[in-house]
Amino acid sequence: MTCRVLVLIEAIRARLGRHSDRVLRALGDDAAVVKADGLVVTSVDAFVEGVHFRLATTSLRDLGHKCLAASLSDLAAVGAEPGEAYLALGLPTGVAERETLELIEGAEALAENLGVTICGGDLSASNELFVAVTVTGHASSEDNLAGRDGCRPGDLVGVTGRLGGAGAGLIMLERKEHGLPVEVGARLLERQRRPWPRLEAGIALARAGVHAMIDLSDGLASDALRLAEESGIELVVELERLPLDEGVEAVAEIAGMAPAELAASAGEDYELLFTAPPDARQGIETASEDAGAPVTWIGEVRPGAALRLLDERGVQRSLRGWDHLDSRTATDRGRRGRASR
Amino acid sequence: MTCRVLVLIEAIRARLGRHSDRVLRALGDDAAVVKADGLVVTSVDAFVEGVHFRLATTSLRDLGHKCLAASLSDLAAVGAEPGEAYLALGLPTGVAERETLELIEGAEALAENLGVTICGGDLSASNELFVAVTVTGHASSEDNLAGRDGCRPGDLVGVTGRLGGAGAGLIMLERKEHGLPVEVGARLLERQRRPWPRLEAGIALARAGVHAMIDLSDGLASDALRLAEESGIELVVELERLPLDEGVEAVAEIAGMAPAELAASAGEDYELLFTAPPDARQGIETASEDAGAPVTWIGEVRPGAALRLLDERGVQRSLRGWDHLDSRTATDRGRRGRASR
Repeated sequence: MTCRVLVLIEAIRARLGRHSDRVLRALGDDAAVVKADGLVVTSVDAFVEGVHFRLATTSLRDLGHKCLAASLSDLAAVGAEPGEAYLALGLPTGVAERETLELIEGAEALAENLGVTICGGDLSASNELFVAVTVTGHASSEDNLAGRDGCRPGDLVGVTGRLGGAGAGLIMLERKEHGLPVEVGARLLERQRRPWPRLEAGIALARAGVHAMIDLSDGLASDALRLAEESGIELVVELERLPLDEGVEAVAEIAGMAPAELAASAGEDYELLFTAPPDARQGIETASEDAGAPVTWIGEVRPGAALRLLDERGVQRSLRGWDHLDSRTATDRGRRGRASR
Repeated sequence: MTCRVLVLIEAIRARLGRHSDRVLRALGDDAAVVKADGLVVTSVDAFVEGVHFRLATTSLRDLGHKCLAASLSDLAAVGAEPGEAYLALGLPTGVAERETLELIEGAEALAENLGVTICGGDLSASNELFVAVTVTGHASSEDNLAGRDGCRPGDLVGVTGRLGGAGAGLIMLERKEHGLPVEVGARLLERQRRPWPRLEAGIALARAGVHAMIDLSDGLASDALRLAEESGIELVVELERLPLDEGVEAVAEIAGMAPAELAASAGEDYELLFTAPPDARQGIETASEDAGAPVTWIGEVRPGAALRLLDERGVQRSLRGWDHLDSRTATDRGRRGRASR
């Protein structure tokens, strides 16, 4: 270890706190040690420069926030209580130590807010910036956790919050003009740059009897298809019922897209999509309202094996969400959010 | 998700098994679910093309083995029972799907051998190949775990197995000639390409009363310094007492280095370095022998705050191990293994 690395690691350590009594050892040892009594839920995500983000349109602080938020969103989708996080960073020489620390600070601010402890990680040189995040959550019993494979014919399809905001924010970043009221535009950019995982709602929904759940990271068109495939059912969504963020219609018009198609294909909203039996409807509405994430019912589950996205005339639309391997740049990501029949 | 990604993910799933009853859910959901009753030990490592490895001198199968082995070695250093692993891959377009699957197969073969379950991960496009590995282990009590900060003056310094083999193997890969007997050369290459984590020995040593422990990933010169710094003591190692792999002397001569200096600076042996009180000596020797990793005693702990590497004349040598941020290529890694006063 040279002085430079040691100083950077010390500076990172100084910025991190312990936000949970579970954590017995963090940072400095070969491994972190955490108390666990029941089930541990673990998710891993990698975010790569030029694929998931562009340094031209994100600050390192926002990037740290967003990578951790997106990872924690996987815990929300399962309904686990968030616990710990680990960050493995690939750092090009062009990223200054100050910027690396800003990335850490952005992640740590979110972690502190959510009671999550950043317990460790790794640093490496690399040619492109990447952030690999591991998050762990906790649950007492599998009964309290949702999966992707539980959808049943007759279920209703619900979604938390509003959609399309993150996609609209990305289009704004790329086009640099939008004509929206300043506050509306700022909220869309915030949804793109600093999403918040629906952790409280995820726990509430899993306990309120959802049959299956997933977070909307790659876009409803991709994520709903996963639910349908893992469950072996047909999932029908009426696009006109999608709850849209304010301003999405205006941005969609600029981009030459139908607003619901933008919302269904652009991704990164990190809302929760789930299916539940009709008799759980009232309980779910109350639970999610209490968790600050009101639910909108957008479709139903039928026997079959497909995703059907229906427009206002009942015509099936063919939309694609985000693809981690086929898209080479974050700019492509904006372009990919287009509809095709 | 396009067809290509889905096919690749299906092919990966088909190659992975569950090797532990702890694992309730793996692959396919947003997160894996694992039973834990006591302590969970977690470590994260990133391996980057051109920094930690070169595709010119490693097969993808060996790379998968080595990345997982190096990560599990962190659990060995703590004395945790190995449990689960997660792989986040950055995949350049130049890496074919067949090669990606070979990487997975290499990791899975090791995982199966050790009773470790690969529970999930992530795939992303990238410009350079990277492998971010998260491993989790289990322990019933903190009393059974070792850390880095427990060295005490009067402790003996011990190391498992033999050193220098991985470094010598790397020099052989780069120089393409060595003049060693075929079998000896093959063993050195194997140590470089397919290291084995000292998991059983780590558990045995942690229970046999070591005060502190670390795995030799970056080289004794770097890793012993960490023990000294974290513990706030002076750690004295006599270089002539280092147990060398067969063939290290010959390769060191080709490289113009003293054999012990190669062994102390080159890294990647993944043996365990520890300190223990003299009265634990006999128990430690027996426990590590039973675990297939005989111990050699190479120094002692004194009051102070430094690492002292002494040559056969008692003169202090200044050696450096491997540095993750300052070295840009795996070739540099070989060059870095040189001594300087």
